[in-house]
Amino acid sequence: MRIAVINGPNLNLLGQREPEIYGTTTLAEIEARLREVARELDTAVSFSQFNGEGEIIDAIHALRGAADGALINAGAYSHTSLAIHDALTSVAVPFAEVHLTNIFAREPERRRSMLADAAVAVIAGFGAMGYELALRGLVARLSTDG
Amino acid sequence: MRIAVINGPNLNLLGQREPEIYGTTTLAEIEARLREVARELDTAVSFSQFNGEGEIIDAIHALRGAADGALINAGAYSHTSLAIHDALTSVAVPFAEVHLTNIFAREPERRRSMLADAAVAVIAGFGAMGYELALRGLVARLSTDG
Amino acid sequence: MRIAVINGPNLNLLGQREPEIYGTTTLAEIEARLREVARELDTAVSFSQFNGEGEIIDAIHALRGAADGALINAGAYSHTSLAIHDALTSVAVPFAEVHLTNIFAREPERRRSMLADAAVAVIAGFGAMGYELALRGLVARLSTDG
Amino acid sequence: MRIAVINGPNLNLLGQREPEIYGTTTLAEIEARLREVARELDTAVSFSQFNGEGEIIDAIHALRGAADGALINAGAYSHTSLAIHDALTSVAVPFAEVHLTNIFAREPERRRSMLADAAVAVIAGFGAMGYELALRGLVARLSTDG
Amino acid sequence: MRIAVINGPNLNLLGQREPEIYGTTTLAEIEARLREVARELDTAVSFSQFNGEGEIIDAIHALRGAADGALINAGAYSHTSLAIHDALTSVAVPFAEVHLTNIFAREPERRRSMLADAAVAVIAGFGAMGYELALRGLVARLSTDG
Amino acid sequence: MRIAVINGPNLNLLGQREPEIYGTTTLAEIEARLREVARELDTAVSFSQFNGEGEIIDAIHALRGAADGALINAGAYSHTSLAIHDALTSVAVPFAEVHLTNIFAREPERRRSMLADAAVAVIAGFGAMGYELALRGLVARLSTDG
Amino acid sequence: MRIAVINGPNLNLLGQREPEIYGTTTLAEIEARLREVARELDTAVSFSQFNGEGEIIDAIHALRGAADGALINAGAYSHTSLAIHDALTSVAVPFAEVHLTNIFAREPERRRSMLADAAVAVIAGFGAMGYELALRGLVARLSTDG
Amino acid sequence: MRIAVINGPNLNLLGQREPEIYGTTTLAEIEARLREVARELDTAVSFSQFNGEGEIIDAIHALRGAADGALINAGAYSHTSLAIHDALTSVAVPFAEVHLTNIFAREPERRRSMLADAAVAVIAGFGAMGYELALRGLVARLSTDG
Amino acid sequence: MRIAVINGPNLNLLGQREPEIYGTTTLAEIEARLREVARELDTAVSFSQFNGEGEIIDAIHALRGAADGALINAGAYSHTSLAIHDALTSVAVPFAEVHLTNIFAREPERRRSMLADAAVAVIAGFGAMGYELALRGLVARLSTDG
Amino acid sequence: MRIAVINGPNLNLLGQREPEIYGTTTLAEIEARLREVARELDTAVSFSQFNGEGEIIDAIHALRGAADGALINAGAYSHTSLAIHDALTSVAVPFAEVHLTNIFAREPERRRSMLADAAVAVIAGFGAMGYELALRGLVARLSTDG
Amino acid sequence: MRIAVINGPNLNLLGQREPEIYGTTTLAEIEARLREVARELDTAVSFSQFNGEGEIIDAIHALRGAADGALINAGAYSHTSLAIHDALTSVAVPFAEVHLTNIFAREPERRRSMLADAAVAVIAGFGAMGYELALRGLVARLSTDG
Amino acid sequence: MRIAVINGPNLNLLGQREPEIYGTTTLAEIEARLREVARELDTAVSFSQFNGEGEIIDAIHALRGAADGALINAGAYSHTSLAIHDALTSVAVPFAEVHLTNIFAREPERRRSMLADAAVAVIAGFGAMGYELALRGLVARLSTDG
Repeated sequence: MRIAVINGPNLNLLGQREPEIYGTTTLAEIEARLREVARELDTAVSFSQFNGEGEIIDAIHALRGAADGALINAGAYSHTSLAIHDALTSVAVPFAEVHLTNIFAREPERRRSMLADAAVAVIAGFGAMGYELALRGLVARLSTDG
Repeated sequence: MRIAVINGPNLNLLGQREPEIYGTTTLAEIEARLREVARELDTAVSFSQFNGEGEIIDAIHALRGAADGALINAGAYSHTSLAIHDALTSVAVPFAEVHLTNIFAREPERRRSMLADAAVAVIAGFGAMGYELALRGLVARLSTDG
Repeated sequence: MRIAVINGPNLNLLGQREPEIYGTTTLAEIEARLREVARELDTAVSFSQFNGEGEIIDAIHALRGAADGALINAGAYSHTSLAIHDALTSVAVPFAEVHLTNIFAREPERRRSMLADAAVAVIAGFGAMGYELALRGLVARLSTDG
Repeated sequence: MRIAVINGPNLNLLGQREPEIYGTTTLAEIEARLREVARELDTAVSFSQFNGEGEIIDAIHALRGAADGALINAGAYSHTSLAIHDALTSVAVPFAEVHLTNIFAREPERRRSMLADAAVAVIAGFGAMGYELALRGLVARLSTDG
Repeated sequence: MRIAVINGPNLNLLGQREPEIYGTTTLAEIEARLREVARELDTAVSFSQFNGEGEIIDAIHALRGAADGALINAGAYSHTSLAIHDALTSVAVPFAEVHLTNIFAREPERRRSMLADAAVAVIAGFGAMGYELALRGLVARLSTDG
Repeated sequence: MRIAVINGPNLNLLGQREPEIYGTTTLAEIEARLREVARELDTAVSFSQFNGEGEIIDAIHALRGAADGALINAGAYSHTSLAIHDALTSVAVPFAEVHLTNIFAREPERRRSMLADAAVAVIAGFGAMGYELALRGLVARLSTDG
Repeated sequence: MRIAVINGPNLNLLGQREPEIYGTTTLAEIEARLREVARELDTAVSFSQFNGEGEIIDAIHALRGAADGALINAGAYSHTSLAIHDALTSVAVPFAEVHLTNIFAREPERRRSMLADAAVAVIAGFGAMGYELALRGLVARLSTDG
Repeated sequence: MRIAVINGPNLNLLGQREPEIYGTTTLAEIEARLREVARELDTAVSFSQFNGEGEIIDAIHALRGAADGALINAGAYSHTSLAIHDALTSVAVPFAEVHLTNIFAREPERRRSMLADAAVAVIAGFGAMGYELALRGLVARLSTDG
Repeated sequence: MRIAVINGPNLNLLGQREPEIYGTTTLAEIEARLREVARELDTAVSFSQFNGEGEIIDAIHALRGAADGALINAGAYSHTSLAIHDALTSVAVPFAEVHLTNIFAREPERRRSMLADAAVAVIAGFGAMGYELALRGLVARLSTDG
Repeated sequence: MRIAVINGPNLNLLGQREPEIYGTTTLAEIEARLREVARELDTAVSFSQFNGEGEIIDAIHALRGAADGALINAGAYSHTSLAIHDALTSVAVPFAEVHLTNIFAREPERRRSMLADAAVAVIAGFGAMGYELALRGLVARLSTDG
Repeated sequence: MRIAVINGPNLNLLGQREPEIYGTTTLAEIEARLREVARELDTAVSFSQFNGEGEIIDAIHALRGAADGALINAGAYSHTSLAIHDALTSVAVPFAEVHLTNIFAREPERRRSMLADAAVAVIAGFGAMGYELALRGLVARLSTDG
Repeated sequence: MRIAVINGPNLNLLGQREPEIYGTTTLAEIEARLREVARELDTAVSFSQFNGEGEIIDAIHALRGAADGALINAGAYSHTSLAIHDALTSVAVPFAEVHLTNIFAREPERRRSMLADAAVAVIAGFGAMGYELALRGLVARLSTDG
């Protein structure tokens, strides 16, 4: 099984950016841990990060034929981007939405995701471990449905 | 570690109730699977379900001194009950909110949880497996923070 | 045919409670009249009243396999309870929603029923006679569809 | 007792118009059935249908001195016409509002009736039988109050 | 100077309709009084009433070349009719909006006029005398501006 | 009959202030014209203007026992002052609300008067002549009711 | 192919009515041009205009069996009439909605069409030429689908 | 005089629950102090606490004939329960609403009480002493009115 | 201890103003009673009333160094004045907000106080006695905290 | 005449992306057809597509001096991008907004275009043919105005 | 050039009032610094502060003929006073709006200024230095435009 | 001290773009003037402009360790971009928000900045000079705090 992990704006700063909110784990550490879990699950994982909305759309388009599922943490674009939503529905790859923080306990503008209604599942607030849990959940789901 | 799992109204019908939405797994099967995972994680698990709001509040009160964390799937009360919210903040036991379905892709009145701002984390849409993922996530979180 | 009639909070006070709004007929009198009409329609009728939301959910769950249809007057819970709504969709028993008063001519918070979108039909404002009319309508509907 | 039944726009197409929503009974069949029930209730019934808002207002004005009560199904004007509302309050003839479908389970713009706050009672979702039930209810109400 | 007075739905019932709100003066009496005042002001007055929205639009269209100003009491259509608004801006005849009651002290749906932003002036709450005051005001205004 | 005319903030600048909106007539000219009309109507008129909300409240309090009615043009306070509203209901002197411009055709925040629901009548858009019309209307009304 | 063109209120004044907004082309000129284009497309065209909402509903009802498609410019009723919407869904004739002006660049109350969700397509802002473009588009669409 | 004091959900935890918000006084201490004050006022006092909405409704029903007034602190149900509101209006026992904290300075969802419009008076923010003040106020009020 | 009591607009008319709402006790009688209670509590009390918003702000500023606490009944300004709110937070004198009527059972615009979020406590609906209760509560509170 | 056609995000997937919504025609086919029509109209056409908001803005800036008009289908950015709106008003090139689907019959967040108020015209729902119609309409408009 | 600086309610307490929000600089120090800068800019400056809304309106009226521009910090009235807005548009003196704090980062009710749409410019968050910057900006602006 | 100036979309067209709104000064001229002022203030200044949201985020990320403060004019992205907001809070460099026009006097969608709550200060409406004023203000602020 092939799972792509796509990260959005400002996540390149993870570990340094507002650590009291987002924690001290870096994106590289998340990637390393995910690769371990993927091996355990016999799954291939790709991992990327972009600050530009158009680049994220490009990356999602590239999933067609290249991935069986995706983990999407679109950062702040989660709350504003209909275009990323449409890219996701366009390629029709099942995906889980991941947030490091519990966005439902934050400012009002972060409590609504524009992507969630196209997602298989949403996981928020487990910090870096959320990626791992989402990977396990999505792989299980895809295995069952397939 | 002791984790309590509290389920809300109509979840006793799981497996029979609108299976095209909620799946065919029963609550007993979820409990059984959770006990397995708990053993693996060296964690004690209690498991209960109530249709009454007051009973759920009583059950939450009983967590004080008896649980280190909780998984809460308050069903429809998630969207309407400030009293359950207050019970959770009163006992100050860290909890993860679990939903079988991706509530953020459903009717507007289900998209907002009144409990979420008190939760450590939220997980929705992974079906029965969501309980297991939440258990793993919460135990890891509590182990790290402890 | 078996029809269950479930009444919600404060309806036990009917006849005494704000008679200028709710009339002077008691719930016992409504039950008696309904039994008469049921006999005429060759229908079995059960009749209950509860003040607790959880008890009403329990009663609705008990309809499975025990009733072909229901009349629901959930009183004030009609306007606030998503959990009763879900109980009704969970058991999938066709029901008519009954209100003694014309709720659409009352205070704004009473003008919206959270149950109505799951109901076959809604009848409001015919006072105690509304139960009888709803029984006739529902029995006819179930006979036609069956 | 004299009861007038006034139907609004597009109801002339009943039976042909979106039968999956509105059923296959025609307005003529409804009228025939109502006349039967009226005979049983010893009541005189008039029956009319108009597509124009002004014509409906005229018909309502004509009720003064000519009818003891009315059944009003103003179709789509139910949701937009303050002028029909005012015609009804102007002539002060008690009326029941009838809808074939359960408007409270339909699109948001159909969930609110501008006439309901002037009505004695509202009945929605019993299809063609709703007229009969409303006639029985209104005649009983007028007999009791008189 | 030629002034047309156009009245909307239900105003034909004036004097009989809800007299505790609208008073006991009839439309004919208002017309008679207006003709007196018009004579005093050396002004020609026409006077009409319609229940249909389309008829009112027709009457407004007929003002072109036939009237120098208008008094409009569109009754309930004042609050809902964009089409009458557009008819008034189409013919570009200056008009004063008249209401018998103080609509700004009534139900919320009556507090906003859809015509007012095209009017020269608005007068509400002076009962039948409002027509006379509006006639005096409009004639003075047109004399000054001419 | 004794009528008090109370004017609110910025009306002292009338004639100079934004004449394209408010016209070139001064408040003194309005007062002079009103005194003429008052003589014709055999009515005593007092006339005042204040920029302070508290002063206007004081002036309204002074109406008790000293005036039979009032014309109130509270300027911008019309749209924001609940305290002036309460002063008017406290003294219970019948009053007409006057606006030089048609406030219902202006910016949204000017379209709602906080005083109007306590007024006998509202007149807006007739410019300086509005005072005269309101005086005639109020005196007639008070004569009739008395 | 048979296409009916139905025009709503105030469009009879086209060319004279607010020409800076609606242009100087008359409805007769639009009709003439449409007939030319229809000939080119080998299509029969009927053309009508009504100020009354009820008349428009009647005209739409008459489309059943008499037209294969329709162009609808319901003028101001586009923004307020649920009854015309329902007439269009009742007869189930495919139609394109036409507006002379770009309604989406005008006042808020004109930016929403109540008909659009039942339309095949919407065209706005091309002035009189919009009818021709809509005719071409609709005929092509019906030819393809047929 | 007989006064019943009814407390809602989570108040059993008072003194332990979020003491920085709710203080350290326990419900038992409040009861003891109230009994002292009641003796001083020559008043009989009953005191109860429930976590369930239905139980609170039952307790309110039991007031009929058994209490002359009530102090109600319905906790979180104050903000969501129309059913408790209706129970209170059903029994028509005059009551004062008590809140330990100043709910009007807290989160938006706590700023509105659904019970307040049926209450004689509201007191919030005086902590445990609020019960005593409310008792004094209510007894005085009932003495005066009687 | 020194407590200042500041009253807002229209309260000078107390006893005469809408007595069916505000009661027949005058402000002087309230002052007299408060002085009695203050003596009992060994507290110095000052008492003032102003109709102007600026004067109330001046009075609040004067509290610095001159009062240990305040009772504020800002009348209608309670619902509109951010400036009085800021004056209160500027001087940082603890205060209780008092209302004669239960503002939470009145018109929507009176249900929200702009001062309440800066208050220690709020008391409403106990009529003139509310001042006495608030004085007792505030003195107790200040004694405990000091 | 020179017309530029600019397409926004996800339109590169046209023909493959959700064909039940967007059809099976590819963007290349649309371009080919447009070039044919452009030849017929003696017009030069450029054609581009971008997934990035910034790239679209760059492309719009490049229109200055290089195009006489534009067709803009900004895809999902139509509903969210004030920056593209501003780019369009900055270069002041007249443009028509094109949508393949009838966006006014879709989800609420797609019913409002942020670009429309700067457009000459809007066309939606004619599928791929909408480009052709818009080209004809825009060229005619520019020819007339020039 | 003559510039008037007008300060609103509670600013007399500057330096003492909530210094963690508003800083420790006093209004006298701001005035002193402004006079220095004014000398440098060869500009005459007047400086005033008022707690009353009416007094501020009076001060604004006095600007006519006496000032070429103004700096306005209306404090809390900035967010509520339409009357001060109107005073500013009445005298038509160009002004810059100054706030010590960044009001756009504060509570919702402070984020909207009712004066800003009449201002030349707005400056907020630079503390006491904001006055100096605004003075430089306004003088430059007036010099350029003159 | 090192200050970075980052400009957003469409600002490259400054001087040519809607000069009646944005003025005729070019971005190069603003940069030149800023460099002069920076020299006077002994401050190093960098200056950039981007049309893409992602590029702006990249530029903000690059500020870490490279700038002591920033001036941000994010153009239209100011009103829509949560991602730029997060980039700014991520790097935690103090910044002032600059707008050429008084955005608070423009269209509603421009009146709210999504960046402002993270800014030190906001300045709007001083045209090109606003950059200079913001630079002076920010340098002073940083000098004081340092």
